[in-house]
Amino acid sequence: MSLNEEVDLLRRIPLFSNIEPSKLKLLAFASERLTFREGTELCRQGDVGDSAYIIIEGSVGIVVSTPNGDARVAEARENDIVGEIAILCDVPRTATVVADRDVEVLKISKELFFRMVEEFPRMAVEIMRELATRLERTTGQLTRTLNS
Amino acid sequence: MSLNEEVDLLRRIPLFSNIEPSKLKLLAFASERLTFREGTELCRQGDVGDSAYIIIEGSVGIVVSTPNGDARVAEARENDIVGEIAILCDVPRTATVVADRDVEVLKISKELFFRMVEEFPRMAVEIMRELATRLERTTGQLTRTLNS
Repeated sequence: MSLNEEVDLLRRIPLFSNIEPSKLKLLAFASERLTFREGTELCRQGDVGDSAYIIIEGSVGIVVSTPNGDARVAEARENDIVGEIAILCDVPRTATVVADRDVEVLKISKELFFRMVEEFPRMAVEIMRELATRLERTTGQLTRTLNS
Repeated sequence: MSLNEEVDLLRRIPLFSNIEPSKLKLLAFASERLTFREGTELCRQGDVGDSAYIIIEGSVGIVVSTPNGDARVAEARENDIVGEIAILCDVPRTATVVADRDVEVLKISKELFFRMVEEFPRMAVEIMRELATRLERTTGQLTRTLNS
């Protein structure tokens, strides 16, 4: 894929839609494009996390291990970001992420993630929104579970 | 309180510790300092949320209403930020926030919040960290509850 095609692809990801094409070129250079085959793990609960993933194509399951076995707690799909909690909080991976089918991702290193947030505040806002939405949803689930 | 004293106070809040004093002056001008008496509500679940609060002194309880009555799900204290979910996600207040004792806060309007995040990317990172930490904690609680 040419650099221009790569930039076009990045522009279609809502997280980057407000970022100038010239800066997206830098992102295309600095990030890594990876494919995970169906059933393979993007990351594993408990491991040290040094990168986040933006899903370009496909979908993944978020699985946590519990005393009663593995529990699938959420999904993520195209344009979603996963794996950012471990790099934000400096904690081990909080969940295992498994490819539901062949998945294409943009791997963003911890260093690149922080550089992008500093340079693209709108991206920071989008990530905050995403985290806040997930927090709201999880708190709702917890409240309902406590009451059932 | 003089403007310099106000800036000194803001600098002691970790969220602002990396921000230049000249910019903190703007923040001191643009934000509103409020006191809530013990037992009063900073905001109420279900209401429209147009501002976040940074706690300068005191502590608050985070309460959600459930079919079985009110449940206190968390606390926040000095230097914590509360109420940012409603302005980030454009949803009604997800919880009621009650002053445990007399509480002093900095009220940050939605507009100021987004301006600050754009101007102070480090603050954005701190808020992301805070949200990610709370998400990790809530997910852990949910997992444990589902398994108990």
